[in-house]
Amino acid sequence: MHRLLSGLHRGGGVPSVPAPPVSGASQEEIRRQNLGAVLRYVHVHGPTSRAELTARLGLNRSTIGALAADLAAAGLVTEEPPATVRRAGRPSLVVSPRTRVYAQALSIEPDRLRAARIGLGGRILDLRETDRDAGASALDAVAPLAALTEEMTRAVEPDAVRAGVAVAVTDTSRDRDGRVRIGGPDEALRAALDAAFAAGPAVLAGDLADIAGLAEHVRGVAAGVDDLVYLHGGAGVSAGIIIGGRLVMGHGGRSGKVGHMVVNPGGLPCECGSRGCWQTEIGEAALLRHAGRDPGSPDGVREVLCAAAAGDPVARAAVERVADWLGFGVANLVNVVNPDTVVFGGSLRDVYTAGADTVRRRLDELALPVSREHVQLRPAALGRDAALIGAAELAFAHLLADPLNVGNPA
Amino acid sequence: MHRLLSGLHRGGGVPSVPAPPVSGASQEEIRRQNLGAVLRYVHVHGPTSRAELTARLGLNRSTIGALAADLAAAGLVTEEPPATVRRAGRPSLVVSPRTRVYAQALSIEPDRLRAARIGLGGRILDLRETDRDAGASALDAVAPLAALTEEMTRAVEPDAVRAGVAVAVTDTSRDRDGRVRIGGPDEALRAALDAAFAAGPAVLAGDLADIAGLAEHVRGVAAGVDDLVYLHGGAGVSAGIIIGGRLVMGHGGRSGKVGHMVVNPGGLPCECGSRGCWQTEIGEAALLRHAGRDPGSPDGVREVLCAAAAGDPVARAAVERVADWLGFGVANLVNVVNPDTVVFGGSLRDVYTAGADTVRRRLDELALPVSREHVQLRPAALGRDAALIGAAELAFAHLLADPLNVGNPA
Repeated sequence: MHRLLSGLHRGGGVPSVPAPPVSGASQEEIRRQNLGAVLRYVHVHGPTSRAELTARLGLNRSTIGALAADLAAAGLVTEEPPATVRRAGRPSLVVSPRTRVYAQALSIEPDRLRAARIGLGGRILDLRETDRDAGASALDAVAPLAALTEEMTRAVEPDAVRAGVAVAVTDTSRDRDGRVRIGGPDEALRAALDAAFAAGPAVLAGDLADIAGLAEHVRGVAAGVDDLVYLHGGAGVSAGIIIGGRLVMGHGGRSGKVGHMVVNPGGLPCECGSRGCWQTEIGEAALLRHAGRDPGSPDGVREVLCAAAAGDPVARAAVERVADWLGFGVANLVNVVNPDTVVFGGSLRDVYTAGADTVRRRLDELALPVSREHVQLRPAALGRDAALIGAAELAFAHLLADPLNVGNPA
Repeated sequence: MHRLLSGLHRGGGVPSVPAPPVSGASQEEIRRQNLGAVLRYVHVHGPTSRAELTARLGLNRSTIGALAADLAAAGLVTEEPPATVRRAGRPSLVVSPRTRVYAQALSIEPDRLRAARIGLGGRILDLRETDRDAGASALDAVAPLAALTEEMTRAVEPDAVRAGVAVAVTDTSRDRDGRVRIGGPDEALRAALDAAFAAGPAVLAGDLADIAGLAEHVRGVAAGVDDLVYLHGGAGVSAGIIIGGRLVMGHGGRSGKVGHMVVNPGGLPCECGSRGCWQTEIGEAALLRHAGRDPGSPDGVREVLCAAAAGDPVARAAVERVADWLGFGVANLVNVVNPDTVVFGGSLRDVYTAGADTVRRRLDELALPVSREHVQLRPAALGRDAALIGAAELAFAHLLADPLNVGNPA
């Protein structure tokens, strides 16, 4: 299931249709692909006139008209005259996604469990959350998430249709040797999710940084950018890597564990059992340690950043030191995967913003000119909701691949 | 042009057909895709019976028969009864690629220029090479490569058809600050290649490690493996990264500059202007330095490896030290891109073979268990010819996408 991620979004903001099976595309298959292309376009770009769809998708006018009418008849879009008519002649109808069709997006975050209903078109319609107990496993999250979902589902309009369910997972556990196992979604979790959300297609699950990166790629600061690294900072650090418009998943979907790239041999021991991992230098604990604060303080990172902004020299030095190591690791990633854009999310968003000059200087010092000259460094745009927004994109995948095969009302 | 690489080989040894344009696949387009699928199958897997093609490609028997007949009529394949008939009944005809159709594969290597004619099916039919002057630019290589090609072309059968031309390029130059610019194929080189090889489709160019990695993925030690890192060692170190069956190209095709990943802050200065880059620890010069040899010695690497194998303690220690750093950087790559297999090519092939236990031990010490447990470490299978074999795959791309639109006899 997880592997589905890799085929979802090619070609930037307008993901192309999936390759047909070698067994040959039938007329029915072609129609399905074209319906998907129209629906996906308005889902990503919002209300769009038939004329613009004709231009963007390279289909002829009458084909677009027929496809839009079919999508409207299925209750997936509305077609209405534009609010303001600019010139003479019959105006082109505007095709808009209908939010009665929604995705159930879930996230298992280190300290919170969150659930959202997100409408076709990407708007958050409802969002509920609850604390997550320290030490709880990802499996423990399934029942509370199901309860939040049930609460929300009771409040929906009678004609609402749930297109799918997807969950972004951050999951860390320890193996028998005490080393951290970065689990992400495993088989037991998948089975529990499938059982808890029995109605509809299988529940899709993915790594939190991958899914948040996907969200920034489809709707965030990297919309339209095909080659990006999204860095997510929290207690640990991980990345969603999208190259050529596709998530770089790796064998078993475990790529992007960049927090455990060793940058400082002989540095501090890491919870993974190794030493000098990048997250020992740029994780939240490192910032707090350098600033002389309690590493367990829940608001510690914000406090250090505020103190640095207010001119506190110790806090400022702590931010600079973390920014320096941040630039160091970014340089390595730039040399290895050659992104166009690096996006900083989670707590690294604010660390980057506070130390942007230092990050850039270190990057310029260490990375190859051909690889770093064009690199854009950007704070994430979607904030805490990125994982939910990305999960919704996953959950809509089935619908966008085959729009007329919609599920039953939730 | 370079970007074409990323769409070439999905789905392991049997690359799938390219996604159709959103404008909708016609019957003609579907036929083209199916012809491409059959031709690609026999090109990668060798002679295959119609019955097996039917099973492998999921097309029905009569469709396979018609497609194979069309390919035979175009002179791209032969169809013959199997040499030995195993059971009663009409034997299924065996479809074989015809080597009259060939790719012109070229490589610009640090010390050599090489040119090969490689037949459909992947066999090297002719191979010629010449020394490359130290300090010569990639542009300087075009005329000698054109001369080698002309020599070869004069020797071909009259009915031979050149399907395309592609070149694998390693290119390093210095910018005004004396820092190394890792160029790869640039616009001037492309223009010169297009002018020198005017007949036929545009000349495709790519980075040597990317192309050698592609070759190992299609026909080498990683055939059928979708997630691999191919490491190429020489004076420098670079990688071809294939994830989900696709080359990870990056913005501008510059990914895989792993030799400039900093692994040892405060280590030795690197020719790129940085310090402690991976290639300062695992490049050929590092091995020679540790072994107390002249870093410029042309056979130095082989001599050190032989001495180590013969029990020379200095040479052995040098190999161990390089193997240790090799495992260190591999651990970082395993954490970042999560390959299934890491392939060691160029001079790293022999270094890996000599120090395999050390590489593995260091990898196991540093990489996350979930990422490294299943990783296979493998010496490259295709040796020096990998770049030429990979370039031929590029050169065949046009033909495999649209088999009946073959070029004119060369």
